[in-house]
Amino acid sequence: MKFNIATIPGDGIGPEVIEESMKILKRIGEVFGHEFSFQEVLAGGVAIDKTGEPLPLETIEICKKSDAVLLGAVGGPKWDSLTGDKRPEKALLGLRGALGLYANIRPAVLHDALKNASPLRSDILGDGIDICVVRELTGGIYFGDRGRRENGKLGVEAYDTEAYSVGEVERIARTAFEIAKQRNNKVTNVDKANVLESSRLWRSVVEEVAKEYPEVTLEHMYVDNAAMQLIRRPQQFDVLVTTNMFGDILSDEASMITGSIGMLPSASLGEGTLGMYEPIHGSAPDIAGENKANPIATILSTAMMLRFSFGLEQEAKAIEDAVTKVLGKDYRTADIMSDGMKLIGTKEMGELVLEEL
Amino acid sequence: MKFNIATIPGDGIGPEVIEESMKILKRIGEVFGHEFSFQEVLAGGVAIDKTGEPLPLETIEICKKSDAVLLGAVGGPKWDSLTGDKRPEKALLGLRGALGLYANIRPAVLHDALKNASPLRSDILGDGIDICVVRELTGGIYFGDRGRRENGKLGVEAYDTEAYSVGEVERIARTAFEIAKQRNNKVTNVDKANVLESSRLWRSVVEEVAKEYPEVTLEHMYVDNAAMQLIRRPQQFDVLVTTNMFGDILSDEASMITGSIGMLPSASLGEGTLGMYEPIHGSAPDIAGENKANPIATILSTAMMLRFSFGLEQEAKAIEDAVTKVLGKDYRTADIMSDGMKLIGTKEMGELVLEEL
Ligand SMILES: CC(C)[C@H](C(=O)O)[C@@H](O)C(=O)O
Ligand SMILES: CC(C)[C@H](C(=O)O)[C@@H](O)C(=O)O
Repeated sequence: MKFNIATIPGDGIGPEVIEESMKILKRIGEVFGHEFSFQEVLAGGVAIDKTGEPLPLETIEICKKSDAVLLGAVGGPKWDSLTGDKRPEKALLGLRGALGLYANIRPAVLHDALKNASPLRSDILGDGIDICVVRELTGGIYFGDRGRRENGKLGVEAYDTEAYSVGEVERIARTAFEIAKQRNNKVTNVDKANVLESSRLWRSVVEEVAKEYPEVTLEHMYVDNAAMQLIRRPQQFDVLVTTNMFGDILSDEASMITGSIGMLPSASLGEGTLGMYEPIHGSAPDIAGENKANPIATILSTAMMLRFSFGLEQEAKAIEDAVTKVLGKDYRTADIMSDGMKLIGTKEMGELVLEEL
Repeated sequence: MKFNIATIPGDGIGPEVIEESMKILKRIGEVFGHEFSFQEVLAGGVAIDKTGEPLPLETIEICKKSDAVLLGAVGGPKWDSLTGDKRPEKALLGLRGALGLYANIRPAVLHDALKNASPLRSDILGDGIDICVVRELTGGIYFGDRGRRENGKLGVEAYDTEAYSVGEVERIARTAFEIAKQRNNKVTNVDKANVLESSRLWRSVVEEVAKEYPEVTLEHMYVDNAAMQLIRRPQQFDVLVTTNMFGDILSDEASMITGSIGMLPSASLGEGTLGMYEPIHGSAPDIAGENKANPIATILSTAMMLRFSFGLEQEAKAIEDAVTKVLGKDYRTADIMSDGMKLIGTKEMGELVLEEL
C-alpha cells in the first residue's frame, strides 16, 4: 500500500527525532512492502521565522490532504515573548481544530526495562503501569468563547468558557470505550460533576454511550481525586477519558509517573483515518542539535500511526517489539540513562531500532 | 482573650475528629489563659436529614458572627443521589461564598516520622516536602455563570464560565506573597496562560503584585507542567498560588505525595480575621463511629486557626510540637500505621496530644 505522510519537524530536537522516525518507516516499507512518501511542512517557531505565522495556510492544506501527520515538537525560548495567536503553540491548537482531531490518545506505559525511572516507590508500581488517557481535544475551554469585560467594582474581568455538547461527548466517549475493548475493558470517566454543569452533561452522555458497551466497566471519578489516585494506585486505571483541560493535566501527570517522558507517543484522531502523531515531550531546545534526544517517543508515535491511520497492526507491533529489544540490550539515551547501561545518542538509538527490524 | 468558635461536625468521621480538637483547644485555653466558646451548627448531610437543606441560613448567620469556624467533614453515600444544590458539598461552596473566604491555604508537609508513607521514592523526597498551596476559593469556574443551551447540529450544550477580575487576583496574589515572606520567599504561579485569557489576566496581575514584594522570587508554571513537577521534583516548590479549579486538583496531588492525608489541615481566609478551618480528608463513612479516624489533620487545623484568625502563634506552635512529639513516640492511627509502630484509635491520639500540652 501507498501512504502520504506530512512531516512537521518543528523546533528544537524535533528535526532530529523526525529524521530517525522516517528511517524506521522507510525500513518498514521495505520489509512489509509499503510505500511511504513524505512531505515536509512548516509549523511552530520555524514557521514564524520563515513566514511570520506559526501555522501557514499551506501547512493546513497539505496536512488535510495527507494520510497522516507526523510532528516533532514546536516552541522554544526564542518565541516566548510572542503573545496569543502569534505563539508556536498556536500551530498545535490550530492543526487540532482544522483537522478535526477531537480524540487525543496518550498511553502512559512503564517499560519493564525502565522500572527504576519512575518517581514512584516500586511497591506502588507492582507489575507495571499501563494507562491509556483519552483526552477530548477540540472542545471545552480550549475552544470556547473568551474575552475581557468590565466588572463594576472589581475592575476588568477576563473569561473563558468551558462548553460541551452532547455530540462532542458522545464521540469521545465512543473512542474511549472502543479502546477499552481492545484492552482491559475498563473506562474511568474523570469530571467535576459535583460543581460543573458541563461535567454533569458530560457524565450523563458517557453513561448513555456506556450502554452500547455492556462488556466494559464504567467508573466515575472527580478530577481532584483522579490526580491523587494516579499517584496512590496507578494500577487501578485502564482507559481514562476526560475533557480537554483535565486531560491536559492528567495525561502529563500520568506520563510523569512512568518516569520516562522521552519514551511516550501520542495520537490525535478525528472522524476518518487521518491522524496526527507526535511524542509527548517538548522541543528541549537546551539539547537541540547535539544528538542527545531520545527518538523513541517519536518512533513509537509512528507505530501508532501505522495502527490507527493505516490499519497496519503487524507493522506497528514490529516497531514496538524492536524498541523493547533495544532497551532489553541495555542501550539508553541520556534521559533514561542509569548505572550499568550503555549511553548512546539519537542517531545510534535510531540505528539500533532499525537493526531489529 | 475570648474567642467564639462555630463548630460544624458534619458527617462520617467529622464529629469524632471535631471532638478531639475541641478538647485540645480547651486545654490550650487553660494553659495559655484564653477562653474558647463553641457553638455547634448544622451543615452537610446531617443538615439535609434534619432540615432538608445542606446549608441552613441559621448556620451561615452563626458562622458570620463567630471568630472562626471549625469544620469536620461533609458528605457520604447516603446523599450521593441528590443533585446540584441539594448535595452536601453545597454546604462547603455556600460557606466559602457567604463568608467571603477567597484564600484557601493548604500546606502539604511530609512529617519526618512519616517519610515512608509517601508514594514517592525516597531519593526524590530528599530531606522532606514542605509546600504551601494557596488556592483562590470564591471565584473562577466554581462561581461563574453556567447553564445549558441549544447548539444547532451538535445538540444541547452545557457551559461553565471561568472568570477572574483584577481585584480577585490581586488579593489572592497578596495572600500568597505574604505567606512566602514567612517561609522561603518563593512563589510559583500556576496558570494556563498559553491558552486561557483568564490566565493571561491572572498572570499579569500576579506580576504587578510581585513588584510590592521584591524579596520574593516569582516563577510561572503551566498547570500541566506543575502536575508533573510536583511528582518529579517536589522540593522546588515553596508557595504555589493558583485558581480555584487548578488549586482543587494540584492541592490534592500535593497532599497525596506526602502520603498522609489524615495529617493535613487547611485554612480558608477572607478580608478580616474570620476563617474556616478543616482537615483536607473527607468524611470516610466506612470507618465512621469506630474510633479509627486520625484526628491530627483537624487538630492541626485548630493550630492554623490560632495562628491566622486569633494571632496566637505561640499557642499554634505548641499544638504542632505536641503532634510531632506523639509521632516521634511511634504512636499511629490506622491510616498512617506501619511496621513496628503502636496502633491507637482516635480518642487515644487526641489524649496523647493533650498530654504533651
Ligand atoms: C502547548 C499546549 C497548548 C498544549 C495543550 O495544552 O494542549 C500541550 O500542553 C499539550 O498537551 O499538547
Ligand atoms: C467537595 C468539592 C466541592 C470541593 C471542591 O472542589 O472545592 C473539595 O474537593 C475541596 O477541595 O474542598
